[in-house]
Amino acid sequence: MTSSTPALVSGTGIGQGVAIGVVARMSDPLPPPADSPSTRTQADEAERARTSLRIVARELESRGQAAGGAARDVLEAQAMMAEDPMLSEAIDEALAAGKTAERAVFEAFASFRDQLAAMGGYLGERAADLDDVSQRVIADLGGVPAPGVPSPEHPFVLVARDLAPADTAMLDLDKVLGLVTSDGGPTSHTAILAREKSIVAVVGATDATGLADGTVVILDAASGTVIANPTDQQKADAERRIAERQAAAVAPVTPGALADGTAIPLLANLGSSAGAQAAADAGAEGVGLFRTEFLFLDAGGTAPTIEQQREHYLRLLQAFPGKKVVVRVLDAGADKPLQFLNDAHEENPALGLRGLRALRASEDILREQLTALAQADAATQAELWVMAPMVSTVEETGYFVGLARECGIRTAGVMVEVPSAALLADRVLGRADFASIGTNDLTQYTLAADRMLGSVAALQDPWHPAVLRLVGEVGAAGAAVGKPVGICGEAAADPLLAVVLVGLGATSLSMSTPALTDVRASLLNYTIDEARQLAEIALAADGAAESRAAVAAAALSMKEA
Amino acid sequence: MTSSTPALVSGTGIGQGVAIGVVARMSDPLPPPADSPSTRTQADEAERARTSLRIVARELESRGQAAGGAARDVLEAQAMMAEDPMLSEAIDEALAAGKTAERAVFEAFASFRDQLAAMGGYLGERAADLDDVSQRVIADLGGVPAPGVPSPEHPFVLVARDLAPADTAMLDLDKVLGLVTSDGGPTSHTAILAREKSIVAVVGATDATGLADGTVVILDAASGTVIANPTDQQKADAERRIAERQAAAVAPVTPGALADGTAIPLLANLGSSAGAQAAADAGAEGVGLFRTEFLFLDAGGTAPTIEQQREHYLRLLQAFPGKKVVVRVLDAGADKPLQFLNDAHEENPALGLRGLRALRASEDILREQLTALAQADAATQAELWVMAPMVSTVEETGYFVGLARECGIRTAGVMVEVPSAALLADRVLGRADFASIGTNDLTQYTLAADRMLGSVAALQDPWHPAVLRLVGEVGAAGAAVGKPVGICGEAAADPLLAVVLVGLGATSLSMSTPALTDVRASLLNYTIDEARQLAEIALAADGAAESRAAVAAAALSMKEA
Repeated sequence: MTSSTPALVSGTGIGQGVAIGVVARMSDPLPPPADSPSTRTQADEAERARTSLRIVARELESRGQAAGGAARDVLEAQAMMAEDPMLSEAIDEALAAGKTAERAVFEAFASFRDQLAAMGGYLGERAADLDDVSQRVIADLGGVPAPGVPSPEHPFVLVARDLAPADTAMLDLDKVLGLVTSDGGPTSHTAILAREKSIVAVVGATDATGLADGTVVILDAASGTVIANPTDQQKADAERRIAERQAAAVAPVTPGALADGTAIPLLANLGSSAGAQAAADAGAEGVGLFRTEFLFLDAGGTAPTIEQQREHYLRLLQAFPGKKVVVRVLDAGADKPLQFLNDAHEENPALGLRGLRALRASEDILREQLTALAQADAATQAELWVMAPMVSTVEETGYFVGLARECGIRTAGVMVEVPSAALLADRVLGRADFASIGTNDLTQYTLAADRMLGSVAALQDPWHPAVLRLVGEVGAAGAAVGKPVGICGEAAADPLLAVVLVGLGATSLSMSTPALTDVRASLLNYTIDEARQLAEIALAADGAAESRAAVAAAALSMKEA
Repeated sequence: MTSSTPALVSGTGIGQGVAIGVVARMSDPLPPPADSPSTRTQADEAERARTSLRIVARELESRGQAAGGAARDVLEAQAMMAEDPMLSEAIDEALAAGKTAERAVFEAFASFRDQLAAMGGYLGERAADLDDVSQRVIADLGGVPAPGVPSPEHPFVLVARDLAPADTAMLDLDKVLGLVTSDGGPTSHTAILAREKSIVAVVGATDATGLADGTVVILDAASGTVIANPTDQQKADAERRIAERQAAAVAPVTPGALADGTAIPLLANLGSSAGAQAAADAGAEGVGLFRTEFLFLDAGGTAPTIEQQREHYLRLLQAFPGKKVVVRVLDAGADKPLQFLNDAHEENPALGLRGLRALRASEDILREQLTALAQADAATQAELWVMAPMVSTVEETGYFVGLARECGIRTAGVMVEVPSAALLADRVLGRADFASIGTNDLTQYTLAADRMLGSVAALQDPWHPAVLRLVGEVGAAGAAVGKPVGICGEAAADPLLAVVLVGLGATSLSMSTPALTDVRASLLNYTIDEARQLAEIALAADGAAESRAAVAAAALSMKEA
C-alpha cells in the first residue's frame, strides 16, 4: 500500500455494477516533442508527416472494421481527423516555420483540441479523440509504440486519464474487470462504450490519478465510488453483491412487480428494431419508448417514404406479439436537428421549434408517419401506442390525438417533458389515452439547466423534489381518470428512484435493456405503501442530494425491519 | 369606404392606449434597380457608391444627434451599417462584375439582410434597418427623395410595413395619433420606440397593408386591434376611453390598492438611476426591480469598482427616501453575456451558466456588488432589498442569503423564474426574506419556449394556467410564512392580469413606469375576494387564450353586477 494512494475516489458511475480487481494503468502520454529547428528539408518533414498521418488513419480504420458497432463509427471519425485538410494546412504552416514533423503535428493538433475543448459539452469531450490521434502519429514518427492499454496476463481494473475510442475497441474484455477514468464525463466515449459493452465503470473520478498499478480496488458504479485497498469486510460485501447480481442475471425472468404483487410492467427503450430481440430476451414486457429519429436520420436529406417506414415498424411490432409497443413520432430539433424540419439557427434550440412543434409546421411528415404506423399495426399482433414529443399545452394534445385517430391510430398519448404539460396533467389526460414522462427533458426544463452542459450538470438530477413533484402531479392525474402514466427517461433505470416513481403514480417503467434486471430486483423489495412512503420522503427533501440520501436511508431501514 | 379595406385588423398591441384618426401610409419602397450593365467605368461607379454611402451615413448620424435617446443609438448603428467594410467589399465585387452602383448597393445589402433575417429573433428584426439604409443610398444615387414618413397637415395614424429607426426619429409626434405596422414584432424598433415615446401602436398586423390612405381607424393597443371605418357607437366608445385615460393620467396619484382598500404597492422596474425621478413622479411607491446589467455593460470589459457602483446605487436610493428599492444583482448570461463572467459558447445559453450560477463561479464580483450596495444603503434613507436572479434550488437560496448578510445586506431574497424554485417555494421562502417572480423567464421555462423566438411566441404567454399555477404556489407559500411575494415581469403591466396575480397571492407589483396608471386604475375595480375568484377562473382554463377570455368575461360581469 503506497502512502499516496487515496482510500476512496468518487466519480460518476455508469450503470449499477460492482467489480473487484487490481489496477493496471494506461501508460503515460508521450512527452511534447522538442521545439528545436528541423535538420531535414521542409519537403522531407512534410513527407514524413503525411506518411505517418496516412498510416495512423488506415490503422484506425482497420481497427474500426474489426471492432464493429459504435466503436467503428468513432474510429472512422478519428481516421478522418488524421486526414483533415485544415489540420494538414496547420501542420504545413508549422513546417514552413522550420519545425520538425513531430513538433508540427503536436502543435497543430493541440491548437484544434483547445478550440474543441473550449466548446464544452459533447464537442468538448471529443478533444480526447484528437489527443489520441496526435499521440499515435507522433509515436509513428519516432518509431516507438503508441501509448495504449496495458495487457497484463491477469484480469485487471483499467485506470486511465480517459480512454480513446481506439483503446476501448482494443480492450480484451475477458480480462477487463472495470474502467476508471479521471477525465471524461457521462457522455464521454468511455462512458458510451462502457454502457454498450456493460463494463463496470466510474468516469470523471479526478483523484483516480493517484491509484497506483497493482492496487486492489472495488468499483461501485451505483454509488460512483472506487475503494482502494479495501478491508476484508468490504471485499466480502463486494463479492456478495457481485454474486447476487450474477444470480439475478440468470434468474428466471418474471414480470415487473412490487413485493405485494402490484404489477409494474418493465419495458425497453429502443432506437431501432435491431435491439428488439435482445430486449425481449432480457424480459422486456414490451417497448416503452421506440425512438424514430434514426429512421429519419438514416434516410438522409429527406423523410423516408410511408412504405420504408411501414417495413421498419413491421419488423419492430413482429418482435412483440400481444405486447405493448409505444412509438414516439419524430422528435427532431434541439440536439437532433433534421434539415427538412428544423430552422438552421435558433439561439436556444432546446427551447425552440422542436418535437411536435416542428412536426405541426410540417404536418405532411407527421401524417405519413402516423399512416405508416397504423398500417403496420393492422398487419401485426402487437398492441401499438403512439405518442408525441414536446407537448406543452392541452391544445397541442388535442391536435395530436385528433390527427392520430384520423390516421387510424387507436391509442394516442403524449410525452410529458415540459413543466406546463405536467402542471395541467389532469386536462392533458382528459384528451390523451396515456402519458409517458421523459424525465431527462423534464428535469432540464424544471431546473432550467441544459442536460448537455457540464457547468450546470449538478442541477440536472431527476432526484430533485421539484421534478418529483411534477411526476407526482401526472401520476395523480392518471389515477384520477384511470389512464396509464409511464416513465421513459433515464430516471427509470435507477433501481431506487424507480421505486419512488412508482410511489408517485407511475404505472410502468421503460429503460435501456441492460437496466431491466436491477430494476426488476429492486421493485420486488417494496410494497406499494412503502413506495408511497419513500415518495413522500423524496418530495419533502430540500434538494436532489437530500432526497436521494433520505430515501436510501429509509429504504435501508424498511429492508432491515 | 373602399371594398378592399378590412373591417378589423389584428396584431400585437404595445401598451394599453386607444387612438382614433385617419390613415396616412408610408410611401412604397423604391423598385429594385435594373440589372443592366453599367455604362460608366468601374472606378466612376465605385466613387458614386462611396459618396452616397458617406452622405447617408452622415445624415443618419446627424438625425441621431437631433433625436437623442434610444433613437440616437439606433441611428448611429445604421450609420455604421452604411460604412461596414464587409458590405463595401460585397459592393466592390458586384461593381467588378460590371453592375451599376445602384444595383451593386441593392444586391450587397439584400444579401446581408437575408443572412440577418435567417437568424430570427432580435437580429432578424434588424433586417429592416439594413433595408432602410439600402433605400436611402439608392435614393441618393438617383437624386430622388428617400421613401419616408408622410407629412400631412392634419393629425394621422401612420400605417407602414415597418418603421426604420430613422423614420421613427423623424416623426412629428404632435401629429402622429398612432402607429400600425404589418411587419415587425413586439421587439422591433417600432415597438421599442413606441414604448419609449408612449405612442399608441399595433405591430405585426399582417392585414394592415389593406388599410388605405384616408380611412378612419380606431387603434386599441390593449386588444391589439385596428377597427377600420368604425360605427358611430364604436367611435363614441373609443372617445370615452381616450377621455377616461386622459383623466386617469392627470388624476391625483394614490397608493396602489384594491376596491376594498387592500394595499398593493405599485413599484417601478428601472435599468438605471436616470429613470428614478420620472418613476417617483408617476407615483411609483418604490422600485420593484432595479437591473444592474447596464452598469456592468457600460463599464466595458471589466466589472465596475466598488466605488463606482456605490456612487450609482447612492443616486438611485436617494430618489426614494423611506421607500423600498429592490436591486437585482448582476444577471449576466443568456441574451446579456458579459465577457468576464460568461462562457463564449453554450448550446442553449438560456439553460446555461447565467444569473446566480455565473456569479457564484466568480464570487469576487458578487461580493463586491453586495458590499457596494450595503455601503450605499448605510448612507441613505431608502429601504434596500437585494435579490439574486436565476435561483433554481433551496441550496442556492441559502448560499445567496448567507453571502448577502455577510456583506451587510439586511433584506435578501430571490427571483423566482425557474419552475423548480416555484415548486419548492415553501422551502425557498424558509431561507429568503422575500421572493419576486420574474414572469418572462418563468413562462419561458414552464412552456419550454424561447422568449426571443418568433416561431414559439404563441406559447410565451403569462396567462397560461400552468404559469399561473406556479405563481399561485409562490403566493401561497408567502402567505403561509408571512413573507412578501412581488411580481416584476411584464405580466404585472397587464391591467387585468395584474388583478389575477394579486388573487394568486402577489403582495406588490412592479412594472415599467408608463404602465403604472392603467394598473392602478384596474386594481381599484376589484375586491380581494373578486381577485381570488378571477384567479380560480384563470387556473381552471385549458390554455392562455381560454384563461384570458374567461377572466375578461367574469370581470365584465362583476363590474356590471
